[in-house]
Amino acid sequence: MKRGLAVILLALAFFDAGKLAAQTAAKKQHADLLVTGGTLVAMDGDRRVLEDGAIAVQGDIIAAIGPRTDIEKQFTATQRLDARGKLILPGLINGHTHAPMTLLRALKDDVTLDVWLQKYIFPAEAKNVNENFVRWGARLAALEMIRGGTTTFADMYYFEDAVAEEVKATGMRGVLGETVLDFPVPDSKSPAQTFAYTEKFLQRWKGDALIHAAVAPHSIYTCSDKTLQDAAALARKYGAPILIHVAEIKKELDESRAKHSMSPVAWLDSLHVLGPDVLAAHCVWVDADDRKLLAQRDVGCVHNPSSNMMLASGVAPVPELRAVGVRVGLGTDGPAGSNNDLDLMEEMDLAAKLQKISKMDPQALGAKAVLEMATIDGARALHMEKEIGSLETGKKADLIVLTLDAPNAVPMYDVYSQIVYALKASDVETVVIGGRVVMRGRRVLMLKEEEILPKAREYGKKVKESLR
Amino acid sequence: MKRGLAVILLALAFFDAGKLAAQTAAKKQHADLLVTGGTLVAMDGDRRVLEDGAIAVQGDIIAAIGPRTDIEKQFTATQRLDARGKLILPGLINGHTHAPMTLLRALKDDVTLDVWLQKYIFPAEAKNVNENFVRWGARLAALEMIRGGTTTFADMYYFEDAVAEEVKATGMRGVLGETVLDFPVPDSKSPAQTFAYTEKFLQRWKGDALIHAAVAPHSIYTCSDKTLQDAAALARKYGAPILIHVAEIKKELDESRAKHSMSPVAWLDSLHVLGPDVLAAHCVWVDADDRKLLAQRDVGCVHNPSSNMMLASGVAPVPELRAVGVRVGLGTDGPAGSNNDLDLMEEMDLAAKLQKISKMDPQALGAKAVLEMATIDGARALHMEKEIGSLETGKKADLIVLTLDAPNAVPMYDVYSQIVYALKASDVETVVIGGRVVMRGRRVLMLKEEEILPKAREYGKKVKESLR
Repeated sequence: MKRGLAVILLALAFFDAGKLAAQTAAKKQHADLLVTGGTLVAMDGDRRVLEDGAIAVQGDIIAAIGPRTDIEKQFTATQRLDARGKLILPGLINGHTHAPMTLLRALKDDVTLDVWLQKYIFPAEAKNVNENFVRWGARLAALEMIRGGTTTFADMYYFEDAVAEEVKATGMRGVLGETVLDFPVPDSKSPAQTFAYTEKFLQRWKGDALIHAAVAPHSIYTCSDKTLQDAAALARKYGAPILIHVAEIKKELDESRAKHSMSPVAWLDSLHVLGPDVLAAHCVWVDADDRKLLAQRDVGCVHNPSSNMMLASGVAPVPELRAVGVRVGLGTDGPAGSNNDLDLMEEMDLAAKLQKISKMDPQALGAKAVLEMATIDGARALHMEKEIGSLETGKKADLIVLTLDAPNAVPMYDVYSQIVYALKASDVETVVIGGRVVMRGRRVLMLKEEEILPKAREYGKKVKESLR
Repeated sequence: MKRGLAVILLALAFFDAGKLAAQTAAKKQHADLLVTGGTLVAMDGDRRVLEDGAIAVQGDIIAAIGPRTDIEKQFTATQRLDARGKLILPGLINGHTHAPMTLLRALKDDVTLDVWLQKYIFPAEAKNVNENFVRWGARLAALEMIRGGTTTFADMYYFEDAVAEEVKATGMRGVLGETVLDFPVPDSKSPAQTFAYTEKFLQRWKGDALIHAAVAPHSIYTCSDKTLQDAAALARKYGAPILIHVAEIKKELDESRAKHSMSPVAWLDSLHVLGPDVLAAHCVWVDADDRKLLAQRDVGCVHNPSSNMMLASGVAPVPELRAVGVRVGLGTDGPAGSNNDLDLMEEMDLAAKLQKISKMDPQALGAKAVLEMATIDGARALHMEKEIGSLETGKKADLIVLTLDAPNAVPMYDVYSQIVYALKASDVETVVIGGRVVMRGRRVLMLKEEEILPKAREYGKKVKESLR
């Protein structure tokens, strides 16, 4: 009897174990993509750094993140990326650029801003910029940005609808604004014409997963008050972001004070332009009152260290902006004389070093802070922090994998220091945007480099000739 | 008769043509290496930029340089490098580093200089630095520097004789100084012991084609006056260079003024240390009198923008130094908290941008000037301008080839701008030092990357544990 009972119990036990195993297998969820192994730098609320971590992606969303062994128990997958010995980071966010200007890369440097704009940039644009130009320029920019780990960027240029088509085709995420200026530009004779174009543009891309159409009044010194207000009204009608240059140079501040007895920030606020939908590039000449106002209005700011140094615009008070809670991202600005590349890895290094030297304090801005600016705080500046900027369950699966198999990458004592001060754009190996692998082993999948580079050289020749 | 004469003349003519061809073929010189095609940026006296240029190398010397068609007519060659569509530059010169500190890369950043040195660097060195450490550190440094286009570097560290052996094995050119300090260091208990070591070191490497042994008193704040003078005397006995840190931080200036009522530069001059054999790193805190003195004494200075920014040391008056004729080169400084890499391409970009922003003048220092600092002026700072620094007949064949087949490299409007502001270390494809190809297609030939990287990781673990 005892033995019989034991047999029955044993049988039951086996039955349960079998059932359990079957249940576990049945319970195993399916992921479209599993990224496994490697040091996961999450940039989440806890700034978690996970050794031998993993991420499960379903559709364009991060379904789970955690220790590799846990994730592998929970998920099967269609596609796998092995990141052992590498770093996994959220995709970098370039908060301010003029992407098609890649075709005018380094057109003229080492001259004053006035000479640069009046003698080179504006004439070159007037003579060369058309829809095809921006398409090839955007392709070249996307190619360079993806290779440097950028997954989202904010852009201000012309023919932005064509830019949007190109960006969408590359798989990148873009916040794209058609530039509004009071004078004629390559694709528009007046602000009215630009607004008509922009409204169609906003309607067309509404609800797109990758493209966020925006309104981009250039600045207070190139747009009338009416243009600025109309731009804000149009953006708000569609719930679209507003992209604008703010307090970039001293002259802008001086003129605003002379004309309005107010700083550029205060003036924009008095026009009711500032709000939680504004992305303000530069914010160099902002005093304590301006910074408070930017925080109160929940404006996103974008710091562009290369550009500010190259054009000698000034040093943005980044630690002070961060201290009062302003959302501060990082940008490259355009690559035509104000950078001259689209390399956020370099921009992080510069951002930290520029603050240290200008404040004569090596603790002024550290590696972790600038990585925040290039990821989660960049997302916050774009008011997209619920969607992107960190590796967290429920967010878009925008991530990059960096190799540590390079002379400049060993040894590693601190992961943040290594990323910011030692690793390079060329160390980015793999890029995933919205769950889609857009670069693998440094090969950009959605773009034909062998077509883009010769075309860029062709444009270079044409532009050179046009300026003779 | 007329016809007979014609036949004879014709025969003679043919005979002459044949003789001429034979003579030409016989006259064709033999080169060990021909680098052909590409845009040749010579950095010679005329700052020649030659499209479709070529260089013929015999032994370790540039035998000829000119248009490709001319050079190809004059030379046959054992080995050829096709540089069509690429840039050919003189090898870059890193005027100041502590190469073996690659193994302490980014050991601790974002802290004050005192905390960094006292809590991290000195303890880490005391516990870990031995001959094997410097060997592996030097290999890692050489690997990184060659991949970034550096062909010559000046170094100050310990066990420098072992460093010299390693550098020689990589094919690089090195000006290597054993650091002299008044306190015990990993390989010496006293200056006397260091001088004994150094004298053997100087004797051993005398006349070497690649290794230039130097004497390296650390600075006025770590060496007594006697140590400084003994170091200078030893160097001069052997006609060796003197490497020293000068006026790097404000504290050094303040202390020197308090103690000697003189600036560090004036004090060193009063000790008769300054001369045309001195390579002075940093020279941040140098006023107009100091600059004049540095020019008069023909001292070479090395600017280290990354390090000066990272440690918040100050902004060196580079344009002012250049204006009074001081020889100013460019350096990375060590990679352990003051950079954290050995990337001269980045250092050029930084040098220009740092001057622009600190002077609020986009014309303060341009692309051509900083390329000079990384090449011919770096050679002048090392007092080696007759040997290296430009592509000229009779100089050592130290050259690098940069690809323009990268998204960040197109289009190109100005070759200097492109090199300094857009191209990266990763765009260096081929490196030739003294006529020997040491990197081809980004593969470093004389070093085993697959051995060096794991070893560096091992050292990283040991150092980490030693600091617990």
